[in-house]
Amino acid sequence: MIAEQGKFPVDLGLFNIKAHNPSFYELNESMRHKGVTRSIRDFCVPVNPYFPTDEIRAEFMQRLPDYLKYYPPGNEKVASILAGTLGLDAETVVMGNGSTELITWIDHLFVEENILTSVPTFGRWTDQSKETGKEVFYFRRCSSNDYRIDVERFVAKVAETRSRVAVISNPNNPTGALCSVAEIEEIAHRLQHLDLLVIDESFIEFSALEAVPTFEHRAAEFDNVIVLKSLGKNFGQHGVRLGYCVANISLAAKLRAALPKWNVNGAGVLLVEMFAKYQDAYELGRRAAVRDRIAFEAALRTVDDLVVYPSSGNFVFIQAPFNVDGISLRNSLLKDFGIFIRECGNKVGSTSNHFRVAVRPPGEAGELVEALKQCLRKLYLRV
Amino acid sequence: MIAEQGKFPVDLGLFNIKAHNPSFYELNESMRHKGVTRSIRDFCVPVNPYFPTDEIRAEFMQRLPDYLKYYPPGNEKVASILAGTLGLDAETVVMGNGSTELITWIDHLFVEENILTSVPTFGRWTDQSKETGKEVFYFRRCSSNDYRIDVERFVAKVAETRSRVAVISNPNNPTGALCSVAEIEEIAHRLQHLDLLVIDESFIEFSALEAVPTFEHRAAEFDNVIVLKSLGKNFGQHGVRLGYCVANISLAAKLRAALPKWNVNGAGVLLVEMFAKYQDAYELGRRAAVRDRIAFEAALRTVDDLVVYPSSGNFVFIQAPFNVDGISLRNSLLKDFGIFIRECGNKVGSTSNHFRVAVRPPGEAGELVEALKQCLRKLYLRV
Repeated sequence: MIAEQGKFPVDLGLFNIKAHNPSFYELNESMRHKGVTRSIRDFCVPVNPYFPTDEIRAEFMQRLPDYLKYYPPGNEKVASILAGTLGLDAETVVMGNGSTELITWIDHLFVEENILTSVPTFGRWTDQSKETGKEVFYFRRCSSNDYRIDVERFVAKVAETRSRVAVISNPNNPTGALCSVAEIEEIAHRLQHLDLLVIDESFIEFSALEAVPTFEHRAAEFDNVIVLKSLGKNFGQHGVRLGYCVANISLAAKLRAALPKWNVNGAGVLLVEMFAKYQDAYELGRRAAVRDRIAFEAALRTVDDLVVYPSSGNFVFIQAPFNVDGISLRNSLLKDFGIFIRECGNKVGSTSNHFRVAVRPPGEAGELVEALKQCLRKLYLRV
Repeated sequence: MIAEQGKFPVDLGLFNIKAHNPSFYELNESMRHKGVTRSIRDFCVPVNPYFPTDEIRAEFMQRLPDYLKYYPPGNEKVASILAGTLGLDAETVVMGNGSTELITWIDHLFVEENILTSVPTFGRWTDQSKETGKEVFYFRRCSSNDYRIDVERFVAKVAETRSRVAVISNPNNPTGALCSVAEIEEIAHRLQHLDLLVIDESFIEFSALEAVPTFEHRAAEFDNVIVLKSLGKNFGQHGVRLGYCVANISLAAKLRAALPKWNVNGAGVLLVEMFAKYQDAYELGRRAAVRDRIAFEAALRTVDDLVVYPSSGNFVFIQAPFNVDGISLRNSLLKDFGIFIRECGNKVGSTSNHFRVAVRPPGEAGELVEALKQCLRKLYLRV
């Protein structure tokens, strides 16, 4: 079996968990235990490879010890620094220990009976409220229109299910489909009667070269809108755990009051300060990452029989041919090429023949394309 | 006014917040804004200055970038590493983003109507449940018996108030008073009918040279006991945000299921791994910190008119003479000597003439004693 003979003897048993994929860390560790020191390549978790730059990272590491040693300032203080950078009212900004902490608390505080989420989506948006005993309704995005949301259909689905809370991840994780600002605005106006409307913009920084279509500067105009963003991803530092959300002052205050005190760690505080100091470098890096995605998507389209959906994130959603087993494709890429991509079979509204592939710089994109071609060829033969 | 002319022009306005003192970081920053680069000395936050050692810290910093870059493993994985180090059943251990995150969730999940907490205590134990609308009862510790808990009185107070949840911080923060294992065991047996009994052992590692009187290995024997511990403090890395708790499998599972996924950041994961690797160095450092406290307490006793309470933590609770204004003493120490101590006037069961002073190594202890003597002398003159 190809999957068992590979050069990268990762422990595939780590995939035997339901909710999400094993971490890059765990897969690499499983090779260390077999005495293998080479690392797999991460096309699973989308990160910004251009920020911090090497120079900024060096400054970050040099300043970090003090930030890890002393108690961090409170949520309001960190939020006020970030709000200054982003041109937002500090009272509308709440920091989180990763956007996941904010999702958890949003569920606890604002989701009473039910929630409607568009699928496929980030696992926490399908699982969180289910875990706390609420009803979760799905708005199914369709491959036939590249997983885009039709505003009329979405609003109708909310009405039909009598949902009190609705969530849109924009751009959609994992499909990359984007709603425009005008579409989000239309949805927000039509859903003003809901308890809450969450726009999860975790990946929106990578959606456009110019004029990122974020709704964060508009959120506070509505009584029931929370815009959620991830910072760890934007800064290529997922291990830091850093996210924030923007909402009108009253909603933001309710969330802030419930969150654990001092929930942002010292590394997160320093990242927020470095972001304030190096906004130009961040913007250059962000655009480079957008350009990479455009090239990456084009490169993937050269693989025969692979369906590639248009993406506005720093990842691309692809679909393997029906006569290739998705799990075998994932395992073969991992064992033989050390390439780790996100198989999406555990996501509602997706199958194991769907994959989210994180954008990487051009050289690595070429390797991925070559590996995909070889794996598909081998797996076809075995049919 | 002495307080306004000092060599350390910190912004005293930062103290105008209710719940807790400003952070060391904020006070130093307030001097930076005035162009002063020297730093104040932190006798406010008790930390272990002996772990990590310089060598271990260098390894930590060298390995850290990877841990901040990639997604951390989940709670269970980190808990299993820590449980291995501590000789605990991994299923009984739950990791937190600082012990404060665990306190917040304990309140949300297990405190329904009311809670009894012994005072004075850590601010979250008086404020958390009040903020979420529950009744908070106080068991008042008395200076007349050095703030120790009398088991009979404590159990009687629980009965009298019909409390469903009780909390003991052991050793008590800020007084340093300790309950023995036998006393905690007696309390746990007598309060088995409660919804929950929390033993907050955030500072217990510094209570004894040998045989630390922790209850963490006993917690899982009870249906309703949670032992809570802080790791950031033990490792001298408060900015990392790291704590854990130990409870029987069913309680632990309920807490773990509610916590945000991936709540431990990469720096915390690495600290847990380094702790596993360098247990001997940690133990040496821990003992050195205990020896420092013994010497520190003795040094404080040389200050005339200062009441010094016996401590089993890495801090000492002291009381200034009644005819000295506590706020002036704090400000004078800060402005003239750059020494930051914790004035406890905002704590229930304490006054602004009470201070928690973090243990520092012998040289710094001498400076503190000298500064205290000078400040008290000046402040007496002004009466």
